[in-house]
This record gives sequence, C-alpha cells and structure tokens, in this order.
Amino acid sequence: MEKAVEYLREHEREHLDWAIDLCRIPSISTQDEHKPDMRKAAEWTRDLCERVGLTAEIHETGGHPLVYAEWCHAPGAPTYLAYGHIDVQPEGDLSLWDADPFEPVAKDGWLYCRGSADDKGQLLVYLRAAQAWLETAGKLPINLKLLIEGEEEIGSPNLAPFVVKNQELLRCDGILISDTGLFEDGWPTITTGTRGICYKEVRLSGPKQDLHSGDGGPITNPANALAKLIASLHDEQGRVNIPGFYDDVVEPPAAERAALAELRFDEAKYAAELGVSGFSGEQGWSVAELRSMRPTLDVNGIFGGYMKAGANTIIPASAGVKLSMRLVPNQDSQDISRKFDEVIRARCPDTLRCEIINYAHASPYQMPPDSPALEAAKRALHEAFGRECAFIRCGGSLPILTMFKQELGVDSLLLGLSSPNSNAHGPNEKVNLDDLNRGAEAVVRLFGNLGA
Amino acid sequence: MEKAVEYLREHEREHLDWAIDLCRIPSISTQDEHKPDMRKAAEWTRDLCERVGLTAEIHETGGHPLVYAEWCHAPGAPTYLAYGHIDVQPEGDLSLWDADPFEPVAKDGWLYCRGSADDKGQLLVYLRAAQAWLETAGKLPINLKLLIEGEEEIGSPNLAPFVVKNQELLRCDGILISDTGLFEDGWPTITTGTRGICYKEVRLSGPKQDLHSGDGGPITNPANALAKLIASLHDEQGRVNIPGFYDDVVEPPAAERAALAELRFDEAKYAAELGVSGFSGEQGWSVAELRSMRPTLDVNGIFGGYMKAGANTIIPASAGVKLSMRLVPNQDSQDISRKFDEVIRARCPDTLRCEIINYAHASPYQMPPDSPALEAAKRALHEAFGRECAFIRCGGSLPILTMFKQELGVDSLLLGLSSPNSNAHGPNEKVNLDDLNRGAEAVVRLFGNLGA
Repeated sequence: MEKAVEYLREHEREHLDWAIDLCRIPSISTQDEHKPDMRKAAEWTRDLCERVGLTAEIHETGGHPLVYAEWCHAPGAPTYLAYGHIDVQPEGDLSLWDADPFEPVAKDGWLYCRGSADDKGQLLVYLRAAQAWLETAGKLPINLKLLIEGEEEIGSPNLAPFVVKNQELLRCDGILISDTGLFEDGWPTITTGTRGICYKEVRLSGPKQDLHSGDGGPITNPANALAKLIASLHDEQGRVNIPGFYDDVVEPPAAERAALAELRFDEAKYAAELGVSGFSGEQGWSVAELRSMRPTLDVNGIFGGYMKAGANTIIPASAGVKLSMRLVPNQDSQDISRKFDEVIRARCPDTLRCEIINYAHASPYQMPPDSPALEAAKRALHEAFGRECAFIRCGGSLPILTMFKQELGVDSLLLGLSSPNSNAHGPNEKVNLDDLNRGAEAVVRLFGNLGA
Repeated sequence: MEKAVEYLREHEREHLDWAIDLCRIPSISTQDEHKPDMRKAAEWTRDLCERVGLTAEIHETGGHPLVYAEWCHAPGAPTYLAYGHIDVQPEGDLSLWDADPFEPVAKDGWLYCRGSADDKGQLLVYLRAAQAWLETAGKLPINLKLLIEGEEEIGSPNLAPFVVKNQELLRCDGILISDTGLFEDGWPTITTGTRGICYKEVRLSGPKQDLHSGDGGPITNPANALAKLIASLHDEQGRVNIPGFYDDVVEPPAAERAALAELRFDEAKYAAELGVSGFSGEQGWSVAELRSMRPTLDVNGIFGGYMKAGANTIIPASAGVKLSMRLVPNQDSQDISRKFDEVIRARCPDTLRCEIINYAHASPYQMPPDSPALEAAKRALHEAFGRECAFIRCGGSLPILTMFKQELGVDSLLLGLSSPNSNAHGPNEKVNLDDLNRGAEAVVRLFGNLGA
C-alpha cells in the first residue's frame, strides 16, 4: 500500500494532466450542440481506463453514452462500484469568469475550470488509485467496477434503466462516490446521508376571470386563501403542520448530534455568506442540524394576479405555489405526498377549486452506521489527510442512492472532495489540488482497507 | 316641467344622434395617438353645449383638455354642477367585439359602442334636460354648471388642480354625476356612497440571492414568511386583523340594511356570473352588504421565486405582494395606511428585510342622508321610471367625490344610468336607450325639483 501511495506522489503532475485534458472537453449534457463533446469525453474516459489497466467500454443509452470499466481479478475479495459523471453544467454568464471556462488553469494550488470539482477532478481519483495499485502491485486488493455517466446534470434519466438491465454486470458489495463536498478545505469528510424530496405545485382557482377588487368582500380571494393554506403548513414551533408528517422520522442518534456539534459549524460566517441577519426554523435544533437532519417545507415559487410594476385593482382568478419538502430517514416520499395532498384538499376553502401537480419525488438516503466501507474509509481518510474525518449529512437529495439501494441492494459511500468554495455550477469553478491528491491517497488506502 | 318632459320624448331620435356622434370619436385618453380625438371630443362637446344654449369653453390642462359650460341666469335658485367625462377605455381585444368598437349600432333598444355607457351616453342626459327646459320654458329652474373632463380613465390627474384653481367658477350647492350603474335594468338607482382604497406592496427579502432548497431548514424563507404575514391579516371570522382597523367604521343604519335586503340581490345569479360555487367573507353580513358596506383586504397580486413551468428547487431571495384595502365611512385612508405599516413591520420576522410601497389612497365617500338633492332625485326618478328608486353603495372607489367635498365643500349625487350588463371597459359595451331616455326625464324633473 505504501508503494502505491508513493507512486501517486510521484505522478501528481501526470494526474493533473489527466484532469486538465478531461476538463478541456466542454461536455455540457444540457445542450444539444455539445452532443459530440459528450461522446468525446466518454471515449477519452474509456481510453484512460484501458491505459490504467481496466477493461472498459462505452454503452449507448437513450441519451448520452456512459462508460463502464472493471478490474475483477481478485477472487474472494469484495467488489466495489465507483460512480461518477463526466457531464458538466453550462458555463452560464461568461462575463463572470476570469478565464475561458473550458481552458483549465492551475494556479495557487487550485485547478480552475468548469467541471474541475463537479465531477471530473473527483471521479479521476479512482483511476489514479487503480493505476497506483496496478503499477506497484500488479493487482488491486479489491474487485473494482466503474460506472461513469454523462447525464447527471440532467437528472440521470437513463441511469436507472441501465442499472435495472445490468444488475449482474454491476453486482457489488458497495458503491463509492466522490461527488459531494468537504466540510472545510483540508478536512476529510464522509457524507452519511442525503435528504429526500417531495415537490408539489398547488393551484387555487376561484372566479372564472380576474375581478375588479371593488367587488371584494364576499369573493373568496384565491391568493389570500393560498397564503392562509401555506401558513397553515407550519406550526408556531416551526414544525411542518401536516398530520403524520413526523411519524416515520428517526431522530438522529445523540452521538451523531454531538459529533456534528463538535465540528463547530460557523453560523456567523454562513449567515454572512448568504447575506442574512440570522436564522430561524424548527425550535431545538442547530443551524447545521436544521439544514441536513431535519425535514423542511419551503416555498420555491409563488404567483398570482397582477405581478408587474405598479398597481392593478384585481381579485386574481387563481394563484399558485411551488413548494418542496426535504425528507429525512425514514420518511417515504410517496407517503408524505399522500399526506400533503390530503391536508391541502381538507384545508382548501370549498368556494375554490384546488389542483395539485406532482414533480420530483425521492426518498432520503442514510448509510447504515455499521457499513464496513464506512470504517475502512474513515481510517483511510485519517491517514491521507492527517486528520479525523467529519461525518455530515447533505441537505440536498441524490435520488441515485436510493435507486442503487433498491436495484443493487447495496449502500453508497459518499467520499466528497470538493471545497465548500468550489462554486460548482457557478463561474470560476475550482478544485483544490491538495485535497484531490490526498483524496487519491485516501482511495488507495480505502482499496487496501476494503481488501484486507 | 311636463312640457319639458314632452319635448324630450319628441326629440329622442335627435338625442340618440348626439350619442352616436360623440361615441364615434375614439377618445381613448390612455393612448397618445388619440390625442387629436380627445380634442375633437372636447370641441364637439363644447359646440353642443353652445347649441343647447349654454356658454361653454375648452380649458387646457397639463393633459387632455376639459370642457366647462354653464347657464347661470336663475338668481336665488340653487346652483348644481354636473360632472362627466368624454374619454373612454381602449377597445381591448378586437376579436371579442361583434362590430367596430367606434361605429355605434342601435339595436333592440340598446346602443352598442365603446363609451356608450361609460360615460358619453350618461353625461349627455344633462344636456338633453337643459335643452328641454330652455326650449320649452326659455330658462332653467336652477343654475347649471357642467364640468366634462377627458382624463377619467387615467385617474383624473389634472382635475383636482383645475378644481383647486377654479373654486369660484365651480362654486355650487351640489354635484350631479351619472357615471355609475342601475341596480337592475329599468330600476332607478342612487348610489349613496363609494368605498375608499389603500393600496400597498410589501416585499420581504432574505438571502442576497436565491438559494438551493437543499440548504433549507435554518433559512427564513421570504415566501413562506410572506404567506404567514398575509394570513395574519384576517381573523377566523373573516375580519381584517389589523389593530384599530375598525375603530372608525360607522355601522350602516339598520334602515339602510333593511332597504338593501328588500332589493333581494340575487346571490345565485351573481355566483353563476362570476363562476364561483359560493361566497365567503366577514361573518354576519350578506353578499350585497359585503361588497359595498364592509371594508376588505384583498391580495391583488403575489410573486416570488420560480414562477415558470416545471420545478426549480430554490429558496427565493425575496417575495412580494400587492394588496388593497377597501375602506368604508369613516375610515381614513392615511390612518389605515399607518396602521397597516405598523402591523406589517411588527409581524415581519427579524431575519428578513421588509419594504412597503404605497400606491393609491382614497378615503370613502358617503352622501349625507339629509341632502336636499337626494330627496329631489328620489322623487324625480320615481316619476320618470314609474318605480321607487334603489339606494345602494358602490364597492369601488371614486376619489373625485372626496376631492369635490374637500375643495368645493359640497356633496355628490350619483345618479347612475348604465346597465349591470353594460360591459363598460369590456367588449360590446352598450347602454339601454330606454334607461337613458327615462334618465333624461328624471334629470328634467330633478332640475325642477331642485329649483322649486
């Protein structure tokens, strides 16, 4: 193992070139004109996998191709599937970038480029670790499979069908994913869970057309009623006021809360970053807990009546709200969806019509605390970074985790390496090279620990 | 008086031609390209006034010109000022009209044209009545002044300045206005009051930009907070929940409520017209009362976050609402404005910033029940229509009424002649010719009664 680690250190420059080469391909999955770039990125990745010593092939999907690679010559050893994605977000407003978004710049210990953090730089650590083992030991301590898709930024529409169709090919003891973030730069971090989501749109309709507000008084105003309906969805303690909403919520273990408290999340710094003067939310929980361990109900958009400049004296014919609930273990998104619909219909005034539209659904994911990968990763990260790793939960949602669990029956280890300041999806996206190097070392050690 | 009435009947065809000629001028005050038409309409009106036997002149204002005319040769008799407007709303969607909006069509007892009801057909009854008296008696029983503006549909920006500057010229014992509606076709109606208005926009702002809703939990969501704020503005009995809001509300007299109940307002028909399944509002009041005698607080528009199709998982940086309160005697719009602002600032979470924008302000207007014009008009309408007149209040606002009261110290008699189905401001606007003819007779008799 130490030889493999040494190999890594000696090849940092070469490995940086890998990242530069891959980042240079503008593989924007959301834009049709970049379809050739998606294929180019897949081919480049397949070629690198082969160069490193894996067998690899491109699989066609209904959309952008994906790459599957493997080295499975360690009979008796466990099998792990590393997942990553080669597609990136559009560059956005070019005027906000300090350089060409697809011309990688290595500067002051950072690599700047669209995709450097999300997810190209991160996914390459698995290939770096594989190469280090194969070049120094001639073999890997585990069986390694790689699944690299090109549609993550568009919601992975073809990933689940591929997994369903290739369960034998993808069979493994666990999933490894580096597509999340560090708690702080240089602080190794394992994300143990993600929240689920249930996204709804509610529209209330009254009069067949907008009315003059001079007629107001007896008319049930859809916008006033909507406001009352939304307000009814929280109680005075900041809890979601939907009967049964918390029924399946598993309280986070006291030890996990204590560990999170020890990370001393800097609330003042966070408030300054967001531009807010303070925080609110469910009583009895810290900011760090509220944004990852507790369920939410947030309005994402609200609209109705006259929305332009100035005044217009109308009673709107209708008003609508888009809102999403973030869910925690063991809330089930379908169950919450039903409970939400029931309460909305029950609370809607009978003088209005109510329509509910369903958007995204995903259940929360939580890694079992006794997962062998968790212990192996913890030790690997400690050694690579010289520091105990942080365990956090992610407030966002990663539907693929529940999909992997359901289709392959395995858990996912989220070994994120991107900086809290990476600005993934924004201008001047960057990744810290030291974190990537230590991350690659951690993966070398993780392979060793898992195979031991 | 009976001779004057007879004269009217003999000249119905000629008087219809007046309406047709005036309606044909597309005097749309909101559109710059119709500026010449505004002048043309003013000149046509001045000429008619002179033809009828009044002295008349056009007055320039900062905007469209207005016409002032008078016949003041009845020393000792009271002086009344009739107000009307020659400007009209834009034609709107032409495809919804059965004919050219500015080519008047007389059919089945109705005159169809933009402006036929609002207000050209109505304002002409004063000239018809004046002509009938002057042609048959050689004089009027009262001193008559006429003030006809061209900016009513744009909020009369130059009327108040003109009145302030010409208080001596306009001095009178009361104002006569035919610019409201009948309770039912053929049912003479006096509108005794209008509600006031206080129109606000409230914006709540939190994070400096939209956030990913995966960060939700500790963030005060401006849209959720706005909904709660709006919901807080009504209590469970449907009353406006602003401390002191009802302090100055004068309960309508029991006799007025009884008289309104006797009109047997058809709630089912009204619901069908609006396309609603029922009504709500402050408990203890009928639909007819709620829409005219009681104050309201209605959202006119609400907006924030992601408002387009589909889903977007953001916490909005800000959210806003436009809302208006309709006020009743003796609520003062400035006082209500202050009380509203206080309660909004007190209830806004301290983690958000709150901005309040003021739009329209107007206090309610109520005619004193002992006004001599009221008794005179009641008798005149009864004789002209052969039916006891209805007394109603209007749920909308007419800021000029409080302006006249303040600047000239006199009350206004609202002698509306347009049909509840006139569709003023909409396509195929129309006025009932029989109602106009009876209205003209009522004005002949009103002049007589006022002068007696």
